Amino acid sequence: MKALAVDLGGSHAACAVVDEERVLARETVSLEAARGLAGALPILAAALGRAALAAGVRTSDCEGLALGFCGLVDPSAGRVLSTNMKYDDAPAIDLGRWCHAAFGLPFRIENDARLALLGERAAGAARGFDDVVMMTLGTGVGGVAMIEGRLLRGKHFQAGVLGGHLVAAFDGRPCTCGGLGCVEAEASTWSLPAVARAMPGFDGSALARVARLDFETVFAAAARGDAVAAATRDRCLRVWAAGAVSMVHAWDPELLVVGGGVMRRAAEVLPAIEAHVHAHAWTPWGKVGVRAAALGGEAALLGATALLRGA
Amino acid sequence: MKALAVDLGGSHAACAVVDEERVLARETVSLEAARGLAGALPILAAALGRAALAAGVRTSDCEGLALGFCGLVDPSAGRVLSTNMKYDDAPAIDLGRWCHAAFGLPFRIENDARLALLGERAAGAARGFDDVVMMTLGTGVGGVAMIEGRLLRGKHFQAGVLGGHLVAAFDGRPCTCGGLGCVEAEASTWSLPAVARAMPGFDGSALARVARLDFETVFAAAARGDAVAAATRDRCLRVWAAGAVSMVHAWDPELLVVGGGVMRRAAEVLPAIEAHVHAHAWTPWGKVGVRAAALGGEAALLGATALLRGA
Repeated sequence: MKALAVDLGGSHAACAVVDEERVLARETVSLEAARGLAGALPILAAALGRAALAAGVRTSDCEGLALGFCGLVDPSAGRVLSTNMKYDDAPAIDLGRWCHAAFGLPFRIENDARLALLGERAAGAARGFDDVVMMTLGTGVGGVAMIEGRLLRGKHFQAGVLGGHLVAAFDGRPCTCGGLGCVEAEASTWSLPAVARAMPGFDGSALARVARLDFETVFAAAARGDAVAAATRDRCLRVWAAGAVSMVHAWDPELLVVGGGVMRRAAEVLPAIEAHVHAHAWTPWGKVGVRAAALGGEAALLGATALLRGA
Repeated sequence: MKALAVDLGGSHAACAVVDEERVLARETVSLEAARGLAGALPILAAALGRAALAAGVRTSDCEGLALGFCGLVDPSAGRVLSTNMKYDDAPAIDLGRWCHAAFGLPFRIENDARLALLGERAAGAARGFDDVVMMTLGTGVGGVAMIEGRLLRGKHFQAGVLGGHLVAAFDGRPCTCGGLGCVEAEASTWSLPAVARAMPGFDGSALARVARLDFETVFAAAARGDAVAAATRDRCLRVWAAGAVSMVHAWDPELLVVGGGVMRRAAEVLPAIEAHVHAHAWTPWGKVGVRAAALGGEAALLGATALLRGA
């Protein structure tokens, strides 16, 4: 099955033509200048057209368009429910109608993290597993669940998709979602600067003198012996590990897949999470497998055909 | 439908004959002196026999026996999986065989908190709701989920039942489950003495002079103006409220039912949890209802017929 696929992030979108487990062509477009989702749609349509040309595929030969969105969605109605501050105009837009007008194709929408789990299961680290939690460590923290081969969605489509918004610190920092002490409020790219600056001794640390305080900076400074950077890194690792235990306790997976930009430091991140989950998750049946995601930025694109088939 | 029902706690068991939404007769037996679950079974069988006599029901007129157990169970195999330190001999016992030999009746087992949710849905606070989380605040903290009218169980039967073991404090206290900073490790009857003693100024508090440090003591001392008791109470309320938000984010209920012994102070506990959930849970569809459990210690008994029908 061929499909059009869009992975829509906060500032960029990947637009692709896929054929089952392969990306035939993709193009990443910037949406920094677009006004809301309405302004982004023509950009996405044009990029999909160019990707189809590059792949030598007519869009009419595709079975549909699958879009992964960085927020809560209603897959049955084809609408965005809540955007956590991104694309505030999205809930009012009938995306199925847009897709039909632009391409004459069926449309499916899912949360981007759920779509990435479908991709990892179809073609990546979760192949052959029916009970999987995928945790994504990046700008935010994603945490999505598949139970017995089905995405967990719940009554309002928010079950099994808010793993990054399980609470890690009950007296913790405000989150963009309205919560307090969510995993991503305590350890993610967006919260990292505030977390690091609150560490004792920050002003004397190399971190106080960097232009851009991101995880790459923190891991690199920690490796050079900066104590504040090491303490910041270790605190974030403990938050992610605690979040992983909460997700295992909430959703009972046999496999935990860890992805996202922070996994560029997989050699430091993955063993810390695995050791903590194996030591502290209550799993009398055995040990949860812990693996790195295999598909990187292509995971959500490669979930497109599974979503269009009704996953 | 008439049924035998057992709600098996750590030190006591309630044994009853129920008819749909009514408890016809019940007897509570102490299991303090029993050696493991094997030693408890004859005591349970005798108490069920006496309850049947008191109800004027022959056990052979019952459709089966439903047992709520304070640990992880495999309802399909009729076995205990893990006991979190109680009844260590339980996993080796074939309870279906025991039930057949004792009563000639079909047997079903479920986690006690899941069974209580079935009871509250059949006859209590969750009547008419299909998407419910029930939180139980007592010796431990229970947190169980029903999604679209079905108990969430997962591959190893531990999905949707470990709400008390979602992490509330990533650098928190060791839990009996092996976790760190679980909701119940930070706020439950078993963890309360350690939590209170760690509060600054404890030695000068009235709490330092009580024989038994339980929530009743803490709430009463706080009401009399004891600052350490008030701080302890408020810390526990924040932990439970954070746990409630995590459960809402994990399982997407429309209703949160709160029960357990701590709800003797419902007038203080329920508004605090409700206000926090309404302020901090990310529920763009509306507000999660927050209600007190209605059935108290009878909830699990009244879940018996729903369980025997295959819930």
